[in-house]
Amino acid sequence: VTIKPFEWKNRQLFILDQTKLPHESHYELCPGLTDVFNAIKTLKVRGAPLIGIVAAYGILVALLEKNGKRAGEMKKIITEAGKFLISARPTAVNLEWAVRRMMEKAKSLDKALTSDRFFLEMEKEAVAVLREDLAMSGRIGKFGSALIKNRMSILTHCNAGGLATSGLGTALSPVYHAKEQGKKVTVYADETRPLLQGARLTCYELLQAGIKTVLICDSMAGTVIKQGKVDMVIVGADRIAANGDTANKIGTFPVAVLAYRFKVPFYVAAPASTFDLTTKEGKDIPIEERDPSEVRMFAGIKTAPENVDVFNPAFDVTDHELITAFITDRGIIKPPFKVNLARYLK
Amino acid sequence: VTIKPFEWKNRQLFILDQTKLPHESHYELCPGLTDVFNAIKTLKVRGAPLIGIVAAYGILVALLEKNGKRAGEMKKIITEAGKFLISARPTAVNLEWAVRRMMEKAKSLDKALTSDRFFLEMEKEAVAVLREDLAMSGRIGKFGSALIKNRMSILTHCNAGGLATSGLGTALSPVYHAKEQGKKVTVYADETRPLLQGARLTCYELLQAGIKTVLICDSMAGTVIKQGKVDMVIVGADRIAANGDTANKIGTFPVAVLAYRFKVPFYVAAPASTFDLTTKEGKDIPIEERDPSEVRMFAGIKTAPENVDVFNPAFDVTDHELITAFITDRGIIKPPFKVNLARYLK
Repeated sequence: VTIKPFEWKNRQLFILDQTKLPHESHYELCPGLTDVFNAIKTLKVRGAPLIGIVAAYGILVALLEKNGKRAGEMKKIITEAGKFLISARPTAVNLEWAVRRMMEKAKSLDKALTSDRFFLEMEKEAVAVLREDLAMSGRIGKFGSALIKNRMSILTHCNAGGLATSGLGTALSPVYHAKEQGKKVTVYADETRPLLQGARLTCYELLQAGIKTVLICDSMAGTVIKQGKVDMVIVGADRIAANGDTANKIGTFPVAVLAYRFKVPFYVAAPASTFDLTTKEGKDIPIEERDPSEVRMFAGIKTAPENVDVFNPAFDVTDHELITAFITDRGIIKPPFKVNLARYLK
Repeated sequence: VTIKPFEWKNRQLFILDQTKLPHESHYELCPGLTDVFNAIKTLKVRGAPLIGIVAAYGILVALLEKNGKRAGEMKKIITEAGKFLISARPTAVNLEWAVRRMMEKAKSLDKALTSDRFFLEMEKEAVAVLREDLAMSGRIGKFGSALIKNRMSILTHCNAGGLATSGLGTALSPVYHAKEQGKKVTVYADETRPLLQGARLTCYELLQAGIKTVLICDSMAGTVIKQGKVDMVIVGADRIAANGDTANKIGTFPVAVLAYRFKVPFYVAAPASTFDLTTKEGKDIPIEERDPSEVRMFAGIKTAPENVDVFNPAFDVTDHELITAFITDRGIIKPPFKVNLARYLK
């Protein structure tokens, strides 16, 4: 792991404030449950897997804060804290999943346990949530890094890196693994308008890891690919349909079209949980439209007439025929996707 | 004409300060030659054709300021003012061209003319420079508007509009003509990173003209085209090679690839002077790389780590086979371009 989006030290939770990145790497202590809630709510902590992990540790923060004396009391604290944390971002699936897992664990514990022992058991569970995410990222990295040869250049879009997860990420995990294996790798990072996760977060974490990084505007990916500057594209995913059509951050689809035109392999890195085999194809994936102000402004500066109409889809769908393969925690999945996704992911 | 990038009123030159757009439509009086020089130098006035026209009027400003009494004296004022203005932006071809034209005119005038008469002759020449640009834009608009049917939607990139010329532009002139003809037209405007000419200038002038405008990030053009939201693409050009390969603002080429994939017509609007038949093909066009800070920040706000490498090509090249036709001041030019460009533009 090359980046720590949070730290758990001496029973204290510190979160890396991502809203201050890339200019300031500030770890903020979250002494109470409300601090954890606010960190999630205000996007200081973002990325679906990371939110889940931090919430699991948030339960520990609540236990220490409320200082429950008996197991029964502690179970009650956990239930209340869990409900509160889930309400921070009600649509993030991982958040609820991780909190419910902590609640289940608490339920399963013996009422006769000492408070110390009870806490240790809960802490173990939070560590397990973290370790499983790391293991998932690690497997994606291991499988993906086999595709990367020494001195290769990789283009990525948005941030599917350590900052969105437990520290390794999905799309960036193969890059980190390749570096561990002694390979020299260069990453071209699309800045990723409107919210600039590429410029702010991907560049930050790659430079922290000592990986050569070249920032480009999204509109420059075409030239980078045409000029043969990149050997492959690796992106993350928000949802993958049964036929392989992939929803990811807006701007992914044009990159896939350009890569296809110039025969540059285009990989999607994602854990098994991102595949939704109940969704048949891309057109069945609902695409969220976000606030027009994101497009009318740049980094808080108004850049367009206030009354101009805006179209601001948060995601686009990359047709499966543009995708070379999926890099998953269960291995590399190649076409035909309809058959192979069902086989690998059942 | 729906927008006036400058005004010449009662022998006073007012320029629309484009650095304040779109938030403020401020016409700044240029009382002296230095003011005109600074307006060009600091990009208050930009767009190659417009710079030339404003410089021609700048010569008139110099004549009034220095208040020459005889024709001989006035010729000297013009020579000196001309040299000074050209130095404002030494690489802009139109600037030098327009200033030299004013100098030639001055040379041709009878030394016996009264200063009033001399000034009137020079003013006529400046008006001619303006009118010829308007006529050129008008012809592009006339030919181009024939391609636009009622209720069509058009996608454009960057600003090849009135603000870059005498008020009508190249890529946007067909849109303005279509509106004049009573057609309802919607324009999707790419914001055009890194300098956001689409968000700042194209949206501004289209809204001023009462044309329905939808602003998108460059990365959203793929979705807009895929979803069938646009009927055609029209862009401007910086240089067009003999085979039709076209250099234009970075981000044009990916739009062309996407339009081609979805069979959306892709037009390039440009006057005859933009075609360079001595350049054989796109790869012979030198592509300027600009300052990394343009990509690392916007409007003074840093968005990326300061030490991240950047690739910042200002233009890209659209391969001729992706272009449906050229909309020129001499008519629509269709493929095969190698044959037809030579025939129309000789």
